Amino acid sequence: MAKSVSGFSKLTKQEKVDWLTAHFTNVGIEAKEILQQYWNEDRILQSLHDDFVENTLTNFYLPYAIAPNFVINKKNYAIPMVIEESSVVAAASMVAKFWSSRGGIKTKILSTIKSGQIHLIYHGSSEGLQLYFDKMKPQLLRATENITENMRQRGGGILDLKLKNITHELDNYYQIHVEFDTKDSMGANFINTCLEAIANEFRRPDIEIVMSILSNYVPECVVRAEVSCPVEELYEENALHFAQKFVQAVKIAAVEPYRAVTHNKGIMNGVDAVVIATGNDFRAVEAGVHAFAARNGKYSSLSHAEIKDGKFRFWIDLPLSLGTVGGLTKLHPLAKLSLEILDNPNAEELMQIVAAAGLAQNFAALRALTTTGIQKGHMKLHLTNIIKLLNAKEDEKQFLIQYFENKTISHKAVVDKYYEMRREKE
Amino acid sequence: MAKSVSGFSKLTKQEKVDWLTAHFTNVGIEAKEILQQYWNEDRILQSLHDDFVENTLTNFYLPYAIAPNFVINKKNYAIPMVIEESSVVAAASMVAKFWSSRGGIKTKILSTIKSGQIHLIYHGSSEGLQLYFDKMKPQLLRATENITENMRQRGGGILDLKLKNITHELDNYYQIHVEFDTKDSMGANFINTCLEAIANEFRRPDIEIVMSILSNYVPECVVRAEVSCPVEELYEENALHFAQKFVQAVKIAAVEPYRAVTHNKGIMNGVDAVVIATGNDFRAVEAGVHAFAARNGKYSSLSHAEIKDGKFRFWIDLPLSLGTVGGLTKLHPLAKLSLEILDNPNAEELMQIVAAAGLAQNFAALRALTTTGIQKGHMKLHLTNIIKLLNAKEDEKQFLIQYFENKTISHKAVVDKYYEMRREKE
Repeated sequence: MAKSVSGFSKLTKQEKVDWLTAHFTNVGIEAKEILQQYWNEDRILQSLHDDFVENTLTNFYLPYAIAPNFVINKKNYAIPMVIEESSVVAAASMVAKFWSSRGGIKTKILSTIKSGQIHLIYHGSSEGLQLYFDKMKPQLLRATENITENMRQRGGGILDLKLKNITHELDNYYQIHVEFDTKDSMGANFINTCLEAIANEFRRPDIEIVMSILSNYVPECVVRAEVSCPVEELYEENALHFAQKFVQAVKIAAVEPYRAVTHNKGIMNGVDAVVIATGNDFRAVEAGVHAFAARNGKYSSLSHAEIKDGKFRFWIDLPLSLGTVGGLTKLHPLAKLSLEILDNPNAEELMQIVAAAGLAQNFAALRALTTTGIQKGHMKLHLTNIIKLLNAKEDEKQFLIQYFENKTISHKAVVDKYYEMRREKE
Repeated sequence: MAKSVSGFSKLTKQEKVDWLTAHFTNVGIEAKEILQQYWNEDRILQSLHDDFVENTLTNFYLPYAIAPNFVINKKNYAIPMVIEESSVVAAASMVAKFWSSRGGIKTKILSTIKSGQIHLIYHGSSEGLQLYFDKMKPQLLRATENITENMRQRGGGILDLKLKNITHELDNYYQIHVEFDTKDSMGANFINTCLEAIANEFRRPDIEIVMSILSNYVPECVVRAEVSCPVEELYEENALHFAQKFVQAVKIAAVEPYRAVTHNKGIMNGVDAVVIATGNDFRAVEAGVHAFAARNGKYSSLSHAEIKDGKFRFWIDLPLSLGTVGGLTKLHPLAKLSLEILDNPNAEELMQIVAAAGLAQNFAALRALTTTGIQKGHMKLHLTNIIKLLNAKEDEKQFLIQYFENKTISHKAVVDKYYEMRREKE
């Protein structure tokens, strides 16, 4: 069948494009042009980007933007954000400026432990396995000495390893839980290599090693970001009412999962934008953060707010496993530049910057939701997008923007008005 | 202070670049070149991408790749994937091919309901509020008629709305929970506009509307993807042992959150890659999926596996709110092309394709983990990346690849070997 293929990965990029557009697009020539218009003229640069993954055909553009005016622990930052959603960068910039004149955002690292597990099945006695583990422990550590040498020189390495009995959850299931400090690297390769070495050393005919793998759940690698100010400095008019409504909105996200998911999604708009801009893995961060939000048995808000002694306080604790060395951080020229723009932070500093971006995003969303509603800003952008799709001319665009200033915007309403306007012009 | 700025958003792109590189980079000229080398030559195309968000300085490249040989419900697909992580596309392609000769991937839509909430505080009696809601309900629906007209013509709209009493969780907290069918649009703007119209209509001096907003938690907008085959067709040698170990690995992810998070992260590698390639919002999908994974009180595996009557079965249920119209789907030329490559699916078909990509990714990860270990493939790519950073020549590269064929790869080991090799050459 023509729509299946053998040896695809071995074709050249052009051959891949030819095969794809011949079999899966209606106007092959046009499709080719779309793919090729995104190729970079600089062949060496393009080849660098092609090699990041397999079967690359072209570059998918995501906007690389800047949110200036962040003050984090009294230091100024302009934060690079990679995101396709409108309003996010504008909101971050606005909130950063707002808090910059109210003491800025304060952050601190609460912990930096990451972990990995060797999952195993053992049919013998728990006591026997524990004895074997205790006896083997020094040997298991020795088996990783070569791998961890470099990391130990940087102050990291294996912190601890212990045998966990999880047979109450699953028959004969145990795990060796290993804790790591991976310093400025995200540490995935390092952790996995250590785990496989330990597993090999631990292996015995009667122990079945099911798998050895790092965990993206990092509830002990946590950063806090917070803002606070006297209530009266918070809002132009009726600051106390604003503050109370804001706190109410956070409390709702604490008790209601339907709201908590969207509340936290907004936080991740800010988090992921910086994670991607610095060459980190946003799927790992997303998984770890949302599982953390559910750690007490019910999916809940990641941020918290209170009014106490006339002071408004808003804060977030985020589990973040990030790297400023390794992975794409130095390979992707824009990731490397992002780190330079952020004054070449170490991993702990990057955690703090990312958490600040997440907190700012959450503040912006809650402020909009509890005051004018989120749609005012969104719909203005929605309107612009619809006008773009209509290929409206500049004067038509201005007319439509004015016309919908105080009206409800829907796709149909804009399209109808556009054609009405054109009919009138004829 | 020079590192803070006023009116940044009003500067031209070039002025933004100038300000940023002057204040936040060491070698401003070099930083400018890095940003500008990613600009597209086509000014109109570049301006389109610039306008997606605010303060855009350049385009962040993510590889746009193709995983061919997917067979989903007997139809052939080549799936566009946007991802920066190596191995993901190769794994998807490999697994797609594997299952294409074993009946392909089967998918079906389980439900398509989305929701939004009007969160409110009311200090009076619950019964009184319920009476007011019941009386107002027809009027609330009428208030949205203009907004929903278009959607209703397409077969969607508001399905139901009810008052929920959540005062047992938070004092005086109620919500109007509204259910929607948004057909082929993701529906965020539509839902939010409807909710704000309902909230305005419901407003009364003694009812405080805290906020009105869609939910990204979509446990009733779920798609299933599955594969199955006789156990003996599953693996070259000792198929039953492989199948049992595979099922064991899935069971471990069901009971152990540290494993479940990473297990699901792997699924999201496949899911997000297609979500981004088609112009959808991956933060919304991530938040909804991970909260769903925690819905029973403990964060758990999204996929399931069993051996029954000699048959291996592996499946996943995923909550996915996606659009094939609206948002960036038609605005981003590559998102539009992705949809064409996928034969212009409607939202339900796209849900199925995305779920298939997630399932394939999970199968690949579990197969690697339970057989050769995940590091074999990863480290080969890690090695290539280290060699790239060393600027090694082609013959040096080949030497290092051969040398590390059966050795443990670490950054230090490769760098040491590289310099040893160079010293020997001198």
